Amino acid sequence: MTLLSTLAGDPEVEALLSDAAQLDAMLAFERALAEASAETGWIGEAAATAIGQAIEGYEPDWPGLEAGMAQDGVVVPALVKQLKAQLPEPHRAALHKGATSQDVVDTALMLQLARIFDVYEARLTGLLDQLDALGKAHGSRELMAHTRMQVALPTTWGAKLASWSEPLKRQLQVIASLRRSLLVIQLGGPVGDRASFGEHGNAIAARMAKRLDLGLATPWQATRDPIIALGGLLTQITGALGKLGVDVTLLAQNEIAAVRLEGGGGSSAMAHKSNPVNAEVLVALGRFNAGLSGTLAQAQLHENERSGTAWTLEWLTLPPMLVNTGASLRLAENLLQQLRLA
Amino acid sequence: MTLLSTLAGDPEVEALLSDAAQLDAMLAFERALAEASAETGWIGEAAATAIGQAIEGYEPDWPGLEAGMAQDGVVVPALVKQLKAQLPEPHRAALHKGATSQDVVDTALMLQLARIFDVYEARLTGLLDQLDALGKAHGSRELMAHTRMQVALPTTWGAKLASWSEPLKRQLQVIASLRRSLLVIQLGGPVGDRASFGEHGNAIAARMAKRLDLGLATPWQATRDPIIALGGLLTQITGALGKLGVDVTLLAQNEIAAVRLEGGGGSSAMAHKSNPVNAEVLVALGRFNAGLSGTLAQAQLHENERSGTAWTLEWLTLPPMLVNTGASLRLAENLLQQLRLA
Amino acid sequence: MTLLSTLAGDPEVEALLSDAAQLDAMLAFERALAEASAETGWIGEAAATAIGQAIEGYEPDWPGLEAGMAQDGVVVPALVKQLKAQLPEPHRAALHKGATSQDVVDTALMLQLARIFDVYEARLTGLLDQLDALGKAHGSRELMAHTRMQVALPTTWGAKLASWSEPLKRQLQVIASLRRSLLVIQLGGPVGDRASFGEHGNAIAARMAKRLDLGLATPWQATRDPIIALGGLLTQITGALGKLGVDVTLLAQNEIAAVRLEGGGGSSAMAHKSNPVNAEVLVALGRFNAGLSGTLAQAQLHENERSGTAWTLEWLTLPPMLVNTGASLRLAENLLQQLRLA
Amino acid sequence: MTLLSTLAGDPEVEALLSDAAQLDAMLAFERALAEASAETGWIGEAAATAIGQAIEGYEPDWPGLEAGMAQDGVVVPALVKQLKAQLPEPHRAALHKGATSQDVVDTALMLQLARIFDVYEARLTGLLDQLDALGKAHGSRELMAHTRMQVALPTTWGAKLASWSEPLKRQLQVIASLRRSLLVIQLGGPVGDRASFGEHGNAIAARMAKRLDLGLATPWQATRDPIIALGGLLTQITGALGKLGVDVTLLAQNEIAAVRLEGGGGSSAMAHKSNPVNAEVLVALGRFNAGLSGTLAQAQLHENERSGTAWTLEWLTLPPMLVNTGASLRLAENLLQQLRLA
Repeated sequence: MTLLSTLAGDPEVEALLSDAAQLDAMLAFERALAEASAETGWIGEAAATAIGQAIEGYEPDWPGLEAGMAQDGVVVPALVKQLKAQLPEPHRAALHKGATSQDVVDTALMLQLARIFDVYEARLTGLLDQLDALGKAHGSRELMAHTRMQVALPTTWGAKLASWSEPLKRQLQVIASLRRSLLVIQLGGPVGDRASFGEHGNAIAARMAKRLDLGLATPWQATRDPIIALGGLLTQITGALGKLGVDVTLLAQNEIAAVRLEGGGGSSAMAHKSNPVNAEVLVALGRFNAGLSGTLAQAQLHENERSGTAWTLEWLTLPPMLVNTGASLRLAENLLQQLRLA
Repeated sequence: MTLLSTLAGDPEVEALLSDAAQLDAMLAFERALAEASAETGWIGEAAATAIGQAIEGYEPDWPGLEAGMAQDGVVVPALVKQLKAQLPEPHRAALHKGATSQDVVDTALMLQLARIFDVYEARLTGLLDQLDALGKAHGSRELMAHTRMQVALPTTWGAKLASWSEPLKRQLQVIASLRRSLLVIQLGGPVGDRASFGEHGNAIAARMAKRLDLGLATPWQATRDPIIALGGLLTQITGALGKLGVDVTLLAQNEIAAVRLEGGGGSSAMAHKSNPVNAEVLVALGRFNAGLSGTLAQAQLHENERSGTAWTLEWLTLPPMLVNTGASLRLAENLLQQLRLA
Repeated sequence: MTLLSTLAGDPEVEALLSDAAQLDAMLAFERALAEASAETGWIGEAAATAIGQAIEGYEPDWPGLEAGMAQDGVVVPALVKQLKAQLPEPHRAALHKGATSQDVVDTALMLQLARIFDVYEARLTGLLDQLDALGKAHGSRELMAHTRMQVALPTTWGAKLASWSEPLKRQLQVIASLRRSLLVIQLGGPVGDRASFGEHGNAIAARMAKRLDLGLATPWQATRDPIIALGGLLTQITGALGKLGVDVTLLAQNEIAAVRLEGGGGSSAMAHKSNPVNAEVLVALGRFNAGLSGTLAQAQLHENERSGTAWTLEWLTLPPMLVNTGASLRLAENLLQQLRLA
Repeated sequence: MTLLSTLAGDPEVEALLSDAAQLDAMLAFERALAEASAETGWIGEAAATAIGQAIEGYEPDWPGLEAGMAQDGVVVPALVKQLKAQLPEPHRAALHKGATSQDVVDTALMLQLARIFDVYEARLTGLLDQLDALGKAHGSRELMAHTRMQVALPTTWGAKLASWSEPLKRQLQVIASLRRSLLVIQLGGPVGDRASFGEHGNAIAARMAKRLDLGLATPWQATRDPIIALGGLLTQITGALGKLGVDVTLLAQNEIAAVRLEGGGGSSAMAHKSNPVNAEVLVALGRFNAGLSGTLAQAQLHENERSGTAWTLEWLTLPPMLVNTGASLRLAENLLQQLRLA
């Protein structure tokens, strides 16, 4: 854990995006593929059993995987090679049969996202509970509204708290919707048309989806608009929490003092300072994710049947966005706990 | 019309975003407000009638509106002043009563978006028809797939055409969904809590929404995530068409010649060139909108009850995104008309 | 002029970027090319004279230029065709001889930039004078410093004013430096190697540069890092003025009232408001240019000897950045005129 | 090292940006401050000696630093506290006397950047040597130029190689220039006006700058345009190498085959593939840095005398840009080694 991630990271989401977590998800793909392939007659039962055992007993050779990643631009060829070395020769051809690297990596991402969504939902729900409790306790209290950075007219804390809650409620609904539309299997084979599975492609995909608890979809390797939409959701979450952060930094100004933060950050030079650290980081993460979303969207412009360029850009931008979102949710909880209304 | 907009603009969407179109929509707001206010007893019937007549006969003093925009940062105060000058003194206080500038501008935007969505839907449907016709004519023809910029394996034109169609089908659905969730009335009054309408706020909002054919919503002046989501849709449309553009520029390379463009662009120096102009602009617009979406998302971080800063940033970024999207749809139609499969 | 440009635009810079201004600059290119070509023997003297006369008497057929732009993705082929129609047949081949569209458009941009830099320099100098006068009048007055949005310790207005001035001084130096490194001629011919000019390329380029008061450079049609660097400068100017805007919105808060704005913006609903409109727009423009600079930088990734895609993206992003910068300088002057220190 | 950083990271630059490297640089700051303060009489000689010894013997309590980072939003208060615990009580007040956290962190960044610039310069020089060798060997060979993705006219490999070299030469010059203008000391004290050092501020700053081999500058804690300019340089480097990557992916297409890559990346599904992995990653990094530069530029809009928000955003965006730049330089070397001209 780096110092910066202590401040602005999220250990839980980072773990769900770690190499180890990705590897687990990729192995789950290969196992499900073998099982579904055996069920549909695309590979033999004995091969599927052997593959399951090989995966069970697999000890990753990490340096080998790293070297493969650097060489091939994707870890799957090295992984498949290591797994094949664990298999009796006659079953080797059955492993990964018909599939391509992108099937593995994209489906693994979906499995990882399902767990990350669990984290987000729990935290969003928790934040809504915190805001609800604040509203019950203080909703009718008066608060001076500010528009365009000037004193406007009195409003209530209830209105302010509602403005913080409402986007989060919408975002919970978007997550629920993305579980259905985004979290789908990727199975297309080398050029994304399932032709590599003979007549078995659709049946294998359907069975794999069921085993992996994912939705079914036609191959989407070069049509990444759902990934861009995910980036949009992440940006909207961190944007909503960034707005919360902006409000708190403004309301906590000494001259306004509409809120106070219990346990703000200290200064190395001014002992009287109580800096709104959590609120600041929420703003920074909101702006960071906003910018990243624009860069992620560049990755929608895939070349032909698969773009190594666009795919790599997606890998570089989506994971930090996922972590930033987790971190924002984590810090917002801290911030609301610190918050004392004047 | 500038030269650049001849290439990369969209006269139809630009017209729907013109000052004149915005003014019409703002006047529709004031009229609906007056009528709804009279129905609920917030203003008198005679006042509403007078307001309707004043709006009917209103001739904008554009220099006055421009001066007001520059002075106030929003055109509504000057507009309201001009309209009041058309009203008998006793009815002046009834105009715009309880409302604030943002109610007018935001609701007007929703009315403008409703018409822009009509354009998008018609064009998306047209593109899907073009792609469908190509698929019927050529779907079973073989096409060499390329992955990671290298020759992969043969696939079919049907698979390629499906990869171009599928995002557009999803985007048609998103537009339908945004019609319900995004196209809602804004009515909050000065600080966004409807307190300025006494007990009448919710009733007025409901009646206005019905009259303007918009959805009903609590005030959202400082919670702009639905606007950011709209930016996401626009980016996904231009991203999908940018991917089409990328594919065409690659397939039309002389050495590959999987497609030919009837009537490509000429060169001032090389008579033999046939440049894939429409495809190029699709790529440029896809990248431009991607970037703009990241900047628009910065505008979610509103300060307090209303941010002049964030709102201005939204005005600067959303309209070009809407035009870019219209232009992409227009150019994609041109491109598909030019497209000849080898 | 649209309403929004009244608020956030800049008529002077917009005029220097208009189609008419670009056309003038392109004609200056063709005239200088003809003259330099005649001097080096690449075309005849009579041809150069005829070309000069044709340019002198040229009346643009704008619809024809627009149609050419839409067809070719660049206006030059249509322009050259129109100019050739003004020439006696024997001299037609001498017009634009050896050159390509990009030579014309890029060099024209340099000529336009030279005049825009004049505007920027004058305004930056003016702002520094305003800040200097404020410093002389009020530099020793005390001001409460705020760090991390909290009261820190007293400082002086002199320190605050210096923090606003120093970036502007640096930017004046960068403009002076870019005049030498950026404002250079583009002359490469169809593939950017000057081979189309036979042995005359370098001599023609040198003479043209002198005539057009530009620097000399090898062809740079696909190496656009100086353009990206220009985008950086523009962003740094609007960022510095955006920081000024942020400070003023914070200092002008009613509860802090360290400054007051003479003649702030009015509200349609709250007569007591004095909104910091100029400061808000400075912030919005600072954020807009920041985002645009990231998108402009995508256009550095040119394909091969010339990228229509990247070039179009540059046309879409650089002009708004130039206007935003002009507008920021204009608004900052207004803001400083309004500023009254408490 | 994560799998992704094996592909797209840079161990050397990552090490120079590690917590340990930052800590070393921060300790160098405190030591230089103590020495310079003693020389000017701001603290006693004995105190400076004691501070030097404490720093010499300091063993960081990392969990304590992490907790401080999370609490204060900056690691310096915790670090100063740990260092003070190593000092005899009478000398404690002399440590960090007059300084503020930002002085430490910003100056430490400058020290880290000086070493990162060493890496960049060495690699840029190496790339120029590689390109020079290619030019000497193959510069006169013919190459078909492509403009706007279409066959244009023949040019030479010399022209192509020059288009790859020239930006890199410019960037070497920019680094040399930034060494003077960017790599300067930060010493401002709590509110950035050096008032906390009494009359000694300027003298201490001058002596510290000399000791740390940095330039001298007035405090710049809230005027970050030089940091934005650094982001511009990084983007221009990765953009230039991204352009190299684009060209190679296009030239290495099987149907064009103007270059071949010795040892390209393998596919898990298609044994015949040789994917241009290094070139792809160069493009992805070019686009990633372009986007990040636009987000970094948002951080120029500091609030008042110090913005925790903007500063955190800078921390989130600048380090990945520095790593991306190192990685691009590393991968470009690999790519040029693989490159075989047809």
